[in-house]
Amino acid sequence: MGNDSEAKREQSAETQPGTGTCSSLSPSSALGTQYSVLGTEYSESTRKPFSFGLIGTDGAARLGRLNTPHGTVDTPVFMPVGTQATVKGLTPAHVKEAGASILLGNTYHLTLRPGDSLIAELGGLHRFMGWDGSILTDSGGFQVYTLALNRKFTDQSAVFHSHLDGSLLELSPKQAVNTHENLGSDIAMCLDECAPADPPPEYLREAVRRTILWAERCRARHRRSDQALFAIVQGGTDLDLRQHCAKALVAMDFPGYALGGFSVGETAAQMLAALPSCTALLPADRPRYLMGVGRPQDILEAVACGVDMFDCVLPTRNGRNASAFTHDGALRLRNARYKRDSGPIESGCDCYACRHFSRAYVHHLFLAGEMLGPTLLSLHNVRYYCRLLEEVRQATREGRYGTYRAVRLAHWQATA
Amino acid sequence: MGNDSEAKREQSAETQPGTGTCSSLSPSSALGTQYSVLGTEYSESTRKPFSFGLIGTDGAARLGRLNTPHGTVDTPVFMPVGTQATVKGLTPAHVKEAGASILLGNTYHLTLRPGDSLIAELGGLHRFMGWDGSILTDSGGFQVYTLALNRKFTDQSAVFHSHLDGSLLELSPKQAVNTHENLGSDIAMCLDECAPADPPPEYLREAVRRTILWAERCRARHRRSDQALFAIVQGGTDLDLRQHCAKALVAMDFPGYALGGFSVGETAAQMLAALPSCTALLPADRPRYLMGVGRPQDILEAVACGVDMFDCVLPTRNGRNASAFTHDGALRLRNARYKRDSGPIESGCDCYACRHFSRAYVHHLFLAGEMLGPTLLSLHNVRYYCRLLEEVRQATREGRYGTYRAVRLAHWQATA
Repeated sequence: MGNDSEAKREQSAETQPGTGTCSSLSPSSALGTQYSVLGTEYSESTRKPFSFGLIGTDGAARLGRLNTPHGTVDTPVFMPVGTQATVKGLTPAHVKEAGASILLGNTYHLTLRPGDSLIAELGGLHRFMGWDGSILTDSGGFQVYTLALNRKFTDQSAVFHSHLDGSLLELSPKQAVNTHENLGSDIAMCLDECAPADPPPEYLREAVRRTILWAERCRARHRRSDQALFAIVQGGTDLDLRQHCAKALVAMDFPGYALGGFSVGETAAQMLAALPSCTALLPADRPRYLMGVGRPQDILEAVACGVDMFDCVLPTRNGRNASAFTHDGALRLRNARYKRDSGPIESGCDCYACRHFSRAYVHHLFLAGEMLGPTLLSLHNVRYYCRLLEEVRQATREGRYGTYRAVRLAHWQATA
Repeated sequence: MGNDSEAKREQSAETQPGTGTCSSLSPSSALGTQYSVLGTEYSESTRKPFSFGLIGTDGAARLGRLNTPHGTVDTPVFMPVGTQATVKGLTPAHVKEAGASILLGNTYHLTLRPGDSLIAELGGLHRFMGWDGSILTDSGGFQVYTLALNRKFTDQSAVFHSHLDGSLLELSPKQAVNTHENLGSDIAMCLDECAPADPPPEYLREAVRRTILWAERCRARHRRSDQALFAIVQGGTDLDLRQHCAKALVAMDFPGYALGGFSVGETAAQMLAALPSCTALLPADRPRYLMGVGRPQDILEAVACGVDMFDCVLPTRNGRNASAFTHDGALRLRNARYKRDSGPIESGCDCYACRHFSRAYVHHLFLAGEMLGPTLLSLHNVRYYCRLLEEVRQATREGRYGTYRAVRLAHWQATA
């Protein structure tokens, strides 16, 4: 990576849809597939199928394009998180204006509240939350690991108590796929078992065995041709296990692959050390999604390892806590130093918040406890992540990703 | 009122600026007036002066137009409340899209935090809060009465402790005018003394005497020719005192008059009984503003008594509490009956929330504790009030205000 002479790329690729050098159709988008949701019959002709085209590479960094029934997604891409069918603090119009083309919805949360059947009844997740772009729904495995109470895994299912009301719940591969199909997302993740950062070897082996088994069962159960089913590679930081898992999943020919089981307590350095050998295990013509990662610096490193898709709660979570991402490092807008600061949150940013308001105003909003403070900073931060990925794609397209990454990381380190 | 044959009106008046049958320039907009804010010199030629034109009447109901340096305001008008330099939960773009042309800012709150000098330093309240429409800043008298601690009144000033940090503060007519001029609102209210609903007669007489004295002092102190200074008629429900107060203030020739001291504990019936004789005391060619009122039914009644301007926190406060205004009465969106309701908040409403989301979605947002719930309902409610006033103006223009009011009130009563 970072070696411009190795760059294989097409000029102005982002403005020419369908010119990818290689592409793959989702196996589930085969012609004539039929499915029904709550009694309504659908066929694949109703909506466009899923495809991914790898447009070019710059070292290991990749430039690609996802086509989903809800539009085009240029990769590498950042997906804002809409856990409970809303990106916290923002309207869908805000999220679109910030440059997002695809959101993440949390299957675990939506199943608990308001329930995937209800969402299906109301026309699916896109209509329910008023978002006409693409949606990826995660596996729920990470939330079962981090939120659910008294969880127990068998080959049949994960059994646990809801973190909301303690009710006993069961999540099987079949139920997971039903949930995704009820939600009607464009990309659905197979049910997986997420293990802690440093588990006993036997525990981790079992989790990987079960993740593979469940991927197979999800694959067999999945019907919606307008929804792509991605598999999740588990294995913690044990590269042999990761390799074993990846090989088994790749043999099943999924339209996309995720790297799961990160952000569970390992250090960023541990994750980044594991990434290159992980992505090397995955087919070049399928999108690679690093789940739940992360900080801007992690994203730049992961792109350099060949990752295409990212999601993270940091832009909105930090926004609610008065912290703004900028290319010169984080700003804590509650700090008294911003009381009289007439400048925008980030100079040069084109977001609604930066175009209309001063740091002094945002500072005032947080001190006064006004909702608009979290809204404006969440908006800026989501736009910041989208701009960062726009820069990543531009640099990759122009064969200077290595330089871009090095300069950006060095500057962040200097301003930290 | 309600007698169509009495209607004096001009057709399509709202689309023809400057065709008012009568108009008045602010006394403070005399040519050549100069003032300075924090060292910057301004003259009246910098911005357009203030004017009000009475376009037509329908019984006692009036159709008018305010011109301020920040645009045209068709009356009767509802002013959303932006207490702390933000309409709670909404961006300025939301507020504008909802149809608001003028906002209210709370002088008391802004003086305490972030401070009017700071706002002046940052270019005035419009620029600070990113609102390019008109702004009215209230007197602070109502907040001194309802929020401030240990308040004491002398002819010099109101002395009280801040409700935020207990610090000792003083508000004199001179300081009040300085504050308004620092904020740079389009309309500023004279400092007044707000009395409780049922005070001892001597208390009320003193409050009225002081309100007149302070209006005179504010008038003498006021310099900004791009800001209209309105006087406030006090006197509680004592009509003799109200008459005395109104006569004294009208003799000073203010460009607009407010009816203050309502919404302090008296019943709606008491207020409405007092209104016709209050408005009868005010000159026809000046706008009349009923401060802090109120519910939709109160507004319809007050318009029928010749009131032109309203402000109230109900749209946003109720919105935050999951309550939606509709022409068929209030909806409590937390109620389980809306769990599967695919309809919009209010059928026929053109607001962003009603165009994109279902009651079921809003219900979900409130149950999940998501910020977007309060935002969407505040947006709808502000639009509801703006639509209500659009209907009021349309009915008045067409000489059918009496019928409109009667039908609307009867329907609300039936659906309550």
